[in-house]
Amino acid sequence: MDRIGKSIDLLMETYSSFGMVNHSGGANLPGRANIARIVGGLDELLFPGFRENQGLDHSNLRLVTAEKVNHLALELIREVEKSLAFSVREGTLSCGHGGCHAAAELIVGSFFEELPAIRHALSLDMEANFRGDPAAKSVDEVILSYPGFRAITVHRLANYFWNAQVPLIPRMMSELVHASTGIDIHPGARIGESFFIDHGTGIVIGETSVIGNNVKLYQGVTLGALSVKKEEANRKRHPTIEDDVTIYSHATILGGDTVIGQGSVIGGNVWITESVPPNTTVYTSAGEQVLMQRDR
Amino acid sequence: MDRIGKSIDLLMETYSSFGMVNHSGGANLPGRANIARIVGGLDELLFPGFRENQGLDHSNLRLVTAEKVNHLALELIREVEKSLAFSVREGTLSCGHGGCHAAAELIVGSFFEELPAIRHALSLDMEANFRGDPAAKSVDEVILSYPGFRAITVHRLANYFWNAQVPLIPRMMSELVHASTGIDIHPGARIGESFFIDHGTGIVIGETSVIGNNVKLYQGVTLGALSVKKEEANRKRHPTIEDDVTIYSHATILGGDTVIGQGSVIGGNVWITESVPPNTTVYTSAGEQVLMQRDR
Amino acid sequence: MDRIGKSIDLLMETYSSFGMVNHSGGANLPGRANIARIVGGLDELLFPGFRENQGLDHSNLRLVTAEKVNHLALELIREVEKSLAFSVREGTLSCGHGGCHAAAELIVGSFFEELPAIRHALSLDMEANFRGDPAAKSVDEVILSYPGFRAITVHRLANYFWNAQVPLIPRMMSELVHASTGIDIHPGARIGESFFIDHGTGIVIGETSVIGNNVKLYQGVTLGALSVKKEEANRKRHPTIEDDVTIYSHATILGGDTVIGQGSVIGGNVWITESVPPNTTVYTSAGEQVLMQRDR
Amino acid sequence: MDRIGKSIDLLMETYSSFGMVNHSGGANLPGRANIARIVGGLDELLFPGFRENQGLDHSNLRLVTAEKVNHLALELIREVEKSLAFSVREGTLSCGHGGCHAAAELIVGSFFEELPAIRHALSLDMEANFRGDPAAKSVDEVILSYPGFRAITVHRLANYFWNAQVPLIPRMMSELVHASTGIDIHPGARIGESFFIDHGTGIVIGETSVIGNNVKLYQGVTLGALSVKKEEANRKRHPTIEDDVTIYSHATILGGDTVIGQGSVIGGNVWITESVPPNTTVYTSAGEQVLMQRDR
Amino acid sequence: MDRIGKSIDLLMETYSSFGMVNHSGGANLPGRANIARIVGGLDELLFPGFRENQGLDHSNLRLVTAEKVNHLALELIREVEKSLAFSVREGTLSCGHGGCHAAAELIVGSFFEELPAIRHALSLDMEANFRGDPAAKSVDEVILSYPGFRAITVHRLANYFWNAQVPLIPRMMSELVHASTGIDIHPGARIGESFFIDHGTGIVIGETSVIGNNVKLYQGVTLGALSVKKEEANRKRHPTIEDDVTIYSHATILGGDTVIGQGSVIGGNVWITESVPPNTTVYTSAGEQVLMQRDR
Amino acid sequence: MDRIGKSIDLLMETYSSFGMVNHSGGANLPGRANIARIVGGLDELLFPGFRENQGLDHSNLRLVTAEKVNHLALELIREVEKSLAFSVREGTLSCGHGGCHAAAELIVGSFFEELPAIRHALSLDMEANFRGDPAAKSVDEVILSYPGFRAITVHRLANYFWNAQVPLIPRMMSELVHASTGIDIHPGARIGESFFIDHGTGIVIGETSVIGNNVKLYQGVTLGALSVKKEEANRKRHPTIEDDVTIYSHATILGGDTVIGQGSVIGGNVWITESVPPNTTVYTSAGEQVLMQRDR
Repeated sequence: MDRIGKSIDLLMETYSSFGMVNHSGGANLPGRANIARIVGGLDELLFPGFRENQGLDHSNLRLVTAEKVNHLALELIREVEKSLAFSVREGTLSCGHGGCHAAAELIVGSFFEELPAIRHALSLDMEANFRGDPAAKSVDEVILSYPGFRAITVHRLANYFWNAQVPLIPRMMSELVHASTGIDIHPGARIGESFFIDHGTGIVIGETSVIGNNVKLYQGVTLGALSVKKEEANRKRHPTIEDDVTIYSHATILGGDTVIGQGSVIGGNVWITESVPPNTTVYTSAGEQVLMQRDR
Repeated sequence: MDRIGKSIDLLMETYSSFGMVNHSGGANLPGRANIARIVGGLDELLFPGFRENQGLDHSNLRLVTAEKVNHLALELIREVEKSLAFSVREGTLSCGHGGCHAAAELIVGSFFEELPAIRHALSLDMEANFRGDPAAKSVDEVILSYPGFRAITVHRLANYFWNAQVPLIPRMMSELVHASTGIDIHPGARIGESFFIDHGTGIVIGETSVIGNNVKLYQGVTLGALSVKKEEANRKRHPTIEDDVTIYSHATILGGDTVIGQGSVIGGNVWITESVPPNTTVYTSAGEQVLMQRDR
Repeated sequence: MDRIGKSIDLLMETYSSFGMVNHSGGANLPGRANIARIVGGLDELLFPGFRENQGLDHSNLRLVTAEKVNHLALELIREVEKSLAFSVREGTLSCGHGGCHAAAELIVGSFFEELPAIRHALSLDMEANFRGDPAAKSVDEVILSYPGFRAITVHRLANYFWNAQVPLIPRMMSELVHASTGIDIHPGARIGESFFIDHGTGIVIGETSVIGNNVKLYQGVTLGALSVKKEEANRKRHPTIEDDVTIYSHATILGGDTVIGQGSVIGGNVWITESVPPNTTVYTSAGEQVLMQRDR
Repeated sequence: MDRIGKSIDLLMETYSSFGMVNHSGGANLPGRANIARIVGGLDELLFPGFRENQGLDHSNLRLVTAEKVNHLALELIREVEKSLAFSVREGTLSCGHGGCHAAAELIVGSFFEELPAIRHALSLDMEANFRGDPAAKSVDEVILSYPGFRAITVHRLANYFWNAQVPLIPRMMSELVHASTGIDIHPGARIGESFFIDHGTGIVIGETSVIGNNVKLYQGVTLGALSVKKEEANRKRHPTIEDDVTIYSHATILGGDTVIGQGSVIGGNVWITESVPPNTTVYTSAGEQVLMQRDR
Repeated sequence: MDRIGKSIDLLMETYSSFGMVNHSGGANLPGRANIARIVGGLDELLFPGFRENQGLDHSNLRLVTAEKVNHLALELIREVEKSLAFSVREGTLSCGHGGCHAAAELIVGSFFEELPAIRHALSLDMEANFRGDPAAKSVDEVILSYPGFRAITVHRLANYFWNAQVPLIPRMMSELVHASTGIDIHPGARIGESFFIDHGTGIVIGETSVIGNNVKLYQGVTLGALSVKKEEANRKRHPTIEDDVTIYSHATILGGDTVIGQGSVIGGNVWITESVPPNTTVYTSAGEQVLMQRDR
Repeated sequence: MDRIGKSIDLLMETYSSFGMVNHSGGANLPGRANIARIVGGLDELLFPGFRENQGLDHSNLRLVTAEKVNHLALELIREVEKSLAFSVREGTLSCGHGGCHAAAELIVGSFFEELPAIRHALSLDMEANFRGDPAAKSVDEVILSYPGFRAITVHRLANYFWNAQVPLIPRMMSELVHASTGIDIHPGARIGESFFIDHGTGIVIGETSVIGNNVKLYQGVTLGALSVKKEEANRKRHPTIEDDVTIYSHATILGGDTVIGQGSVIGGNVWITESVPPNTTVYTSAGEQVLMQRDR
C-alpha cells in the first residue's frame, strides 16, 4: 500500500495550502468531548441522585458535591481559557491584565455562584412540564426523560456563558443538546420562567429571540429571522413572545419586530411574520383540503 | 478560588430547600446509562450477528445467547425493581407480598418469554421497511441503518414494560430512541403489524394512539391530542389509524375520536382533526402559491 | 429463575426458524461502532487540531497524520472488505480475481487520494456556512458546532463510498450523522460546491437528488419522491436543484422531473411537485389565517 | 522525520528475515490479556462475593453465576482452540476428527465439571493458610490478600489444563501469578491437599515436583533440578516432598530422586541434593559467623 | 454444551455446601480494585505533579487537590465502612453508637489530617534513598522509580489504618505493593525515620518488627519469627532493629527477642537468631567454598 | 466533614514547605503509565503477532507496523523531551541549539533505526532460553511466558536510552519489568548475546556490571557492589562476567574488580568477592548441615 504513503504527503500539502488546521503548540480550542463531559457533570450537580449509578445519601452528599464542583471548576476553567485565548488571537477580545487564565477563573467562579439561581429556574420549568403534559406521571419522569426539559436545562447553562461573552462554548453546548433532542435553541435567546417544550423535535429558537414566562412550544416551531444578511447580525432578528403564550406544532414566527402578545395562542402550522395582539388565537384555515373517495 | 468553596455551600442549601434531589441510601432510580446499555444488549439478542464485532457461529451461538440473556435479566431485574420501588414510595403502586424484587423477577421472566413474539413482529416490520422504500437494497441494510426500524424495535420493547405497568423505564427507552432518530413514539401507543416509518425525523405518536397493520408514516407526521388538559390524561386523546393507511410527510392528525379509515392516504402537510372514511385520499390544495419571476 | 433457561431455548428456536441472524464464522457485516469510530477519525484528519484534546504543532503534525492515516486505512479496509463480501454472498457483486481484500485495498487507497479534494470542497462549504448565517462569529465556530456542516462533511465521505459501489457502509455513515443532526441526506445524492444547511433538523434529501452550487437549505426541507414503488428504484425519483437556489424551512419539493431553476427562492412551507423556472420566488399565501381575539 | 519511514522498511525486513513473527490470517495464539481476564473471571467464580464490586445476594447468585460460566466458557474455548491449533501446526498434537474447536469444547466442558472439586481443594488450602500464619486474623483475609493462596489457586486451575495437554495456556497462567506474587510454580507440579505458602517471594517449584498433603513452604524455597540438559526433559528432575513437611525460607532442594520424608522439617537456607528420611529436622550450622565489635 | 448448564448447578451446590461465598445483599467487603485505585490516588496526593499526565501549576493546584481529597475521602469512607461492618459481623469489633458509617468518617477524617506528617516522613525516606544509592541521579528518580520507596510509601499509609484497627484494608494495601515490588512489609511493623530499601525483592518484615531510624535493608532480607504457632499470635514474634543499622542482602534475622544493636552491620546471607550488640559487624565465613579448575 | 476542608489547607501548606511537588505549567516528567504503554507498544513491534488480539496477516502487516511506529515515535518523543527538559532544569544536561524537542526527535529517530539490531539480539536470547530450559516446549512459549526473556527484552530497550543519556526513562523501564518479574537489571548494565535467565525472581544486576555472551543466571543471583558510597558512583562497582559462565540460584558476586572467568560455573548460594579464573567451578560446602531424627 505505497499509495497510503503518498496520500499522507498530499494531505500534508492541503494542510499548508488551504487551512482548516488548528494548532499552536497545545490544545487550543475547547474540545467537543470535554464540553460534553462538563455538561454531563453539571447535569449531575443540578439534579443530584437522578443521574448517578452509585448511591447518594445525606452523609455523603456534601463530599460528592464538593468533589464534583472542584472537578468541574477545573475542567471549565481550562476550556473557558482556551475559548478566551482563541478570541484574543482572533482579535475580538482582550483578557485584561490578569491574562486569560485569571479571566477564566473569574467567569467560572461566578458561574458556580449562579448555579443555585439556575436550579431555581429549572424547578419552575420542571413544574411547567409536569402541568403541561397530560402524559407526565411524575416530576421525576420529567427530569429523567423529557427532551424539552433537557434542552432548557442546557440552554440555561449555555446562556450564562453567552452573557459572559465566552466564545464557542455556548454554541457547542447548545449543539450538544440539539443533537440529542432536535431542539435548536441559540444560546443568545432570552427565555423567561416556567418554559415548556413538548416533544420538541425540529424547534428552532433564534439568537435574538425574547420569550416571556409560562410559554409553551410544541414540536417543529420556528422562531426565526426574516433577513439572513450578514450585515444585520447585530440587530434583533427574531421574534418576541410575551408571557403565557402557547405555540402549537410546526408554527413559524419570523422577524425581529414580530411580537406575539401576552396570552395568545398560535395554532399548528400557522405562518406569522407580523405581530399578534395579546389574547389572540391564530389558526390557519389550512387552504382547502380535498377528500377523494377511492374505489377498492 | 475560595468562591468555589462558598458555591458548594450555596448549592447544598438549594438541595435542602427546593428539592429535585433524589437519594435514599442507594441508587434508587433507573439510570439512563443502564437503560441504554440494556436496550443495546436486547438489540444484540434480537438481531444476533448484526451488532457484534466478534464472530458468531453455530457452535457458539447458544453460549453467547445464554450469557447475554442471563446478564440482561440481571440488569433488567435491578432497574425494574428500582422503578417499582419508586412507585411504591410515590404511593401509586404496591409490589405485593413478595416485595419489589420478586415482582421485578416476574416481569422480567415474562419479558424474556415474550421476546420470540417480539422478534416475529420485527421480522414483519423489516419486510415492510424493505418493500416500502425503493432505496432499500437489502433487508440487512434495514436492520443495520434504518432509523424507523430502530424506533419500532425499541417501541415494541418499551411497550411491553408499559403494559406491565413498570413506571419510568418505558419512557426512558422511548426517549433514548427519540434522541437518536427524532421519532417520538410514546410507549403507550398501540401499533399493529408490518409498520413502516421512512426518514422519520419529527414524527410524534401520542400515548393513546392506536395504529393498525400495514401502516406507513413519513417524516414529520404528528398523531397528537386536541386537548392538553391534565385532567383528561386518562382519556383516549390521540387518533386511531386503521389498517393499510399511508400518511405522508408533515401531516398532522389530532384528537382521540379521529379515525383514519382503512386504506386511506393522507397527503403531505395535511391537517386533520376529524375522522376520514376508509379508502379516502386527502390532500391539501395548499393555499395559493405565488410565483414571482425576478429580473437578474 | 428457571424461566430464563427456557426463554433461551425459545429464543434459539426463533433464530433457526425466522432468520434475522447473521453469522458465518466471523464478524461478517460492517459494525456500527466501527463505522462511527472511522468517521470520527476521518473528521480528525479533515480538520486537524479541531477535534483532538492533545496538542498538535508543526513538529508532530506529520507523525500524527501518518499514524492516523495508517490506522484508518486498516480499519476501513476491514470494514469495506466485510461489506463487499456481504454483497458477494447476496450475489449482487463480484470482487474480481484478487478477492475482496484486494478490492477493499484498492477502494481505500483511492479514497485517501481523494481526501485532499474532499478537504477542498469542505473549505468552500465552510465559507458558505459562515457567509450564510448572520449568527456565525467565526469559521472555527462553524467547524466546531454547525450540524449542517457536520452533515455535509459526512455526506462527502459517504458519497465517495457510494460511488465506489461499497454496500451498507455509505448508508451507515449517513444514518450516523442523521442520528446526531436530524439531517437525512442519502449517500447517493449529488451535491455541488458551497452547500449551506441552517439548523437542519428534519431535512430529507433523497437518493437521486441533484443539487448545484451555492444552494442553501433550511430546517425541515424535503427533497423527496412522488412515487415510492419498489420497481421504480432505478429511476431518478428526486428533484434537481440548480445553482444559487435558496429553500426556506419546511418546504417540500417532490419528483424526479422537478427542477428548481437557477437562482430561485422557495419560501417556507411551500409544496412543489412541478418545475420552477430560474430566478423565481415562490411563496405560499398560506391559506387564510384566522385571528380570534379572546376576552380575558 | 523521514527516518521513521525508513525504519519501518528496515523493521519489515527483519520480520521476513529472522522470524519471531506470528500470523496466520487471524489471532492464532492465546492472548496474555485474555488469559488474565479469564483467570480473573474464574477467581470470581471460585470465591463469589469476594471480588465483585456489585452486590451479590441469594436471589441473584444463580443468574450471576450462569452469566459468568457462559461467558468464561466462550472465552476459554476460544483460547484453548487457539492453543490446540498452535500445537497442530507445530506437529506435536492432533485434534482428532471433530477438529480443534470440538476438542476445545470438550476440554472446557470437563474443566467446569472439575470446578467444584477445585473449590473443595481450595477450601482446604484456605484452612491451612489460616492455621499456619499467626498473623492471619480471619479466613476472609486469606482469600482477600494472601499471595500464597493466590498462587495455589491459579496453580490448581493451570494444572487442570496442563493435565489436559493444552499447550501454552498453563504456563501463561502460572507466569501471571508468578508476576504478581514472585511465586513460580510450574503448572506440571503435582501438589497435594492443604498446601500453605507464607510470604512466598522467590519460591520456585519445578515441573516434575511432587508435593504431598499438609506441606508448608516459606519465601525463597527452591524445588529445583540438578541437571538442566534438554535431553533429560522427560525425566523426573525435581524433588518429591512427602506429607506434613515444612521447608523454611531460602532452602534449596534439588534433584528428581531427592525425597523429603514425611514429617521432616527443612531449616532456612539449607541446601539439599539428597533424600532426607521421614521425621528429620535439617538445619545448617551456617558456617562460622563472625562478629566484629567496632569502635564508635 | 449442555454440560455447561449442569456445571452451573454443581457449582451452585458447592456455594451452599462449603462456603467461601460472601454476600449479604450488597458489596460487603473492601474490593481489591477499589483499594488499588485509592492507593493510586493517595500516591498522587503525596507527590503532586509526579504521577499525573495533565499539567499541574500554581493556579490549579488547590482545585486539583481539593477534588482529589474529596473524592478519596468518599471512596475511603465506603471501603473502611465495609471493613468495619465485616468485623462487626465477625464479632471482633463494635462500631459504637454512631454506626459504622460514622466510625468510618472519623477514621478517614483523621487520616487526612495525618497526611502532612506522612509526607514529612516520606521526604526523609526520599533523602535516605538518594544518599544511600550511588546509582541514584536525582531525588525525582527516587520518587519515579524506586521500588523500596514505593514500599515504604504504601507502608506508611497502611500502618495508619492498622493502628486505627481497620481490618483487611491494611493487609490489602501491603499485598498490593508486595505484588509490584516483591517487598512484603506487614502493615503492623513499626518503622522509624529515613528508611532505605535497595532493590528489595524478597524482603519480608513481620508484623511485630520494630525498626529504628536510618536503617538500610537490601534485597532478600527477612525479619521473621522463630515460632509460627497460632497461639502466640499476640506476642512480639519479630526482631527489633535499632537506629543506624545496615542489613545486607539475604540476611535472615529471626525472633521477637532478637535485637540488632544501634549502628551494627549485618552481612549478606547472615543467619541470626540472637541479639547482636551495638556497633557490631556480623559476616559469615560462608563455609568452605570449593574452586575446581576444569580442563577445557 | 469540615475536617476534610481543613486537611486540604494543611496539605497545601506541606506542598509549599517541603517540596516533593513537581509542576511547571504542564506535565513535565515522563509519566509511569505512558512509559508502560510505550514499552507495551514496543513489545508488539518486536514480536508481531504474539501480543495482539486482532488478526495480523501479510496483507496488513505493513500498515499495522507503520501505524504503530508512527504512534510510538510520537509518544516517545514527548516523553524523551520531558526527560531532557528535566535534566536541563537540573543543570546536568544541555539540549543544544535545536532545543529539547529536536534532541528528542534525533534520539527517537536513531532508536527506531536500532530496533532491527535489537530484534536480532533478542532472537539469540530466545534461542538461549529455549536451549537452556528443559521445560521449554517451544520458542513461542518463551516469547509468550518467560519472565527472564521479558526482562532482557526490556533491558535491551532501556539500555539504548541509557546510552543515549536520556535520564529517568531507562530506570522507569527497568523498574516496570522489575515489578512484574522480580528481576532488577539496572539499565546501565552491559549484557552480551544469548543471555538466559531462568525463573529470575530476586536477581539483581548492578549499574556497572559487564556480562559476556552465553551467560546463564538463575533466580536470586546478585551482581552487586562492595561499596555503596555515593562518592564512588562513577567507578565500576559491579562485577564482570565473561562468556559462557553459568551462575546458579542465590549466588552473590560483588565488586567492580571481580571477574568471573570464561566458562566458569558458580554454584548455588555461593558468595564471591574476588575474581575466579576461567573454567572454574565454584561450589559451597554449605557449612555443616545437621540432620536430627525425631521420634514421632
